[in-house]
Amino acid sequence: MSKLKFVLAPDSFKQSMTAKEVCIAMEQGLKVSFPDAEFVHVPMADGGEGTVQSLVDATGGNLFQQPVTGPLGAPVDASYGVLGDGKTAVIEMASASGIQYINEETRNPLLASTYGTGELIKACLRRGIRRIIIGIGGSATNDGGAGMAQALGVKFYDQHDQPLPLGGGALGQLNRIDASALEPGLEDTEIIVACDVTNPLCGKHGASAVFGPQKGATPAMVKTLDDNLAHYAQVILQQQHRDVANIAGAGAAGGLGAGLLAFTHCELKKGIDIVIEFCNLKAKLADADFCFTGEGGIDFQTKFGKTPYGVAKAAKAHKVPVIAVAGRIGKGTHELYDDGIDAIFGIIPDLGELDVLLTEGEKNIARTCENIGRLLKITLAKPQA
Amino acid sequence: MSKLKFVLAPDSFKQSMTAKEVCIAMEQGLKVSFPDAEFVHVPMADGGEGTVQSLVDATGGNLFQQPVTGPLGAPVDASYGVLGDGKTAVIEMASASGIQYINEETRNPLLASTYGTGELIKACLRRGIRRIIIGIGGSATNDGGAGMAQALGVKFYDQHDQPLPLGGGALGQLNRIDASALEPGLEDTEIIVACDVTNPLCGKHGASAVFGPQKGATPAMVKTLDDNLAHYAQVILQQQHRDVANIAGAGAAGGLGAGLLAFTHCELKKGIDIVIEFCNLKAKLADADFCFTGEGGIDFQTKFGKTPYGVAKAAKAHKVPVIAVAGRIGKGTHELYDDGIDAIFGIIPDLGELDVLLTEGEKNIARTCENIGRLLKITLAKPQA
Repeated sequence: MSKLKFVLAPDSFKQSMTAKEVCIAMEQGLKVSFPDAEFVHVPMADGGEGTVQSLVDATGGNLFQQPVTGPLGAPVDASYGVLGDGKTAVIEMASASGIQYINEETRNPLLASTYGTGELIKACLRRGIRRIIIGIGGSATNDGGAGMAQALGVKFYDQHDQPLPLGGGALGQLNRIDASALEPGLEDTEIIVACDVTNPLCGKHGASAVFGPQKGATPAMVKTLDDNLAHYAQVILQQQHRDVANIAGAGAAGGLGAGLLAFTHCELKKGIDIVIEFCNLKAKLADADFCFTGEGGIDFQTKFGKTPYGVAKAAKAHKVPVIAVAGRIGKGTHELYDDGIDAIFGIIPDLGELDVLLTEGEKNIARTCENIGRLLKITLAKPQA
Repeated sequence: MSKLKFVLAPDSFKQSMTAKEVCIAMEQGLKVSFPDAEFVHVPMADGGEGTVQSLVDATGGNLFQQPVTGPLGAPVDASYGVLGDGKTAVIEMASASGIQYINEETRNPLLASTYGTGELIKACLRRGIRRIIIGIGGSATNDGGAGMAQALGVKFYDQHDQPLPLGGGALGQLNRIDASALEPGLEDTEIIVACDVTNPLCGKHGASAVFGPQKGATPAMVKTLDDNLAHYAQVILQQQHRDVANIAGAGAAGGLGAGLLAFTHCELKKGIDIVIEFCNLKAKLADADFCFTGEGGIDFQTKFGKTPYGVAKAAKAHKVPVIAVAGRIGKGTHELYDDGIDAIFGIIPDLGELDVLLTEGEKNIARTCENIGRLLKITLAKPQA
């Protein structure tokens, strides 16, 4: 048998392992049967939580800490990554403005702001970065990305020409936008937005109606926030000449999608496609014998742009078999076979406590992959008829 | 690829599926990738619980109900099997005299008797059976098999020539054994005892000391019972001319091993070996491509004669790869690879309630085997270097 090449391209297992840790555990297991094989680690993500870590790990980049303004004004310790090319940054908006910074008592979607996300972008620009990948899931905010714009030098005034305070609750008063003092470099920067939702900014499928309640919006607040974002979009159309009201994905992350469309040069793409591109996954798959992927949970939602689905599509283009491992196998996994995942294995050894399972993730990945490797080995060794 | 042959030889999954049900679920999963393959069902057991059902299922035999005397005298509904050859019966002593018939309040190892087990043997003899496999795990008794012998016509008398009552507590009074009125046919019957323990009848590794406490024996009772069994063995030696005191396994099932050795023509064998023989497993494996086995739990104890271990040894003799599935993967499974199990996969899809898992066993077996089959298929289809 010639030397086999395994591409290991899992997502992180939430609360348990980074994608890189999963890669290492996979190799540990597979190496038992294939000590001489080539193992290519491609820690993956889908644009959601873990995307910065995985892209940094996959490209040999670096992670930087950056204190910024949290969604409710208190400082938070955010971070961003710079990829191995030294030219591309990667941000998760949730790192600055995420829902993990609020709780049932403090949450207030009228006041929550994406200002910190703008500060993260600013930090990248000041480092000389001119290409930024930004993942926009998990927001605490509903401000249409106005705070992000404010941090980058955009000024919003009311009808008395007074500056607007932060938060989506104030946008109903917006009368004039002054984008003349934009942060230097922003004009020359390509922003790639990892966005898997197609919600428009306003209306019944819009940011406020769909995502507002989970951020604490009462029905009355949803109405106010939705009206405010509609007004905000109208002012942007009139004064910035960009139509953000009718673009799929503008409603992502409390309308941060709209703010990015209004004030930056950006394109919205599926998170998994961005990660696949910047990890150079397709080239790595070209001559692979097997591709391993995985995620904490695999179920019917996996086909909506999750990592194993994206990896499978990429691998299938090169006719590489795809084997997935998962902490949790939910309903509807049968549909994934048609989409290129050849086999799925759970890693749970026994019923028990979740915290133990999360702690023993690497052991369970390694054991499962060892057994998959054993199966591959005996099968590859079988004389073919 | 030529037509593949899969031998499916799992144990039952306790409280969830009979071995036959496991076979059916395995085939269901594997058939997805191998619709034209040959699937040979060999429901297995290791001499413990489920042995009667599996041997009946594996040989196309029949199960018979038989009311007998329970360990404490109350009637119980026991059963025995007749194998497909029509000539061999299979009994689990626990069906008549098992620990499931006693509880913390009723248990009394001084009184508990194997009389019902003797009645089961008698029922087989009266059906014309002259070969009986008897599995002797899970007993409630500590009577040295005296009750079993009493049911088959052996009479025990005390020094006043009064018949002894049932139970190990009376054996200290044993003075005379009269085996002249044995049940017809017993003399001509071959009894094969499935016995995986090596405990002698008496002493610190004997039936009373090791297994007595779990049947309710206090330290004082253990002393009495152990002394009584030693006396019983001595009388047997003197009057029956059989030495049961120094035979490994005589202490199994509260000394039922000793009783069988004293009053029947029997041999003690490992349970798994008996099942392998009577299922004709080795012949079925001879031209197999893959062997699947499994058990509710697989761990370091599996190598002490459990079904997957025995199946693996049999399969290895024919160089057939062995794949095991398990509800629970415990510690020490690595040692099993050396013993011929090539790969082990868990079937648990997610953390949850045990009763749900037990109910959904077939679904989880089928899904796991489907994914193993998918892996086999893509691997068998790979061009070999």
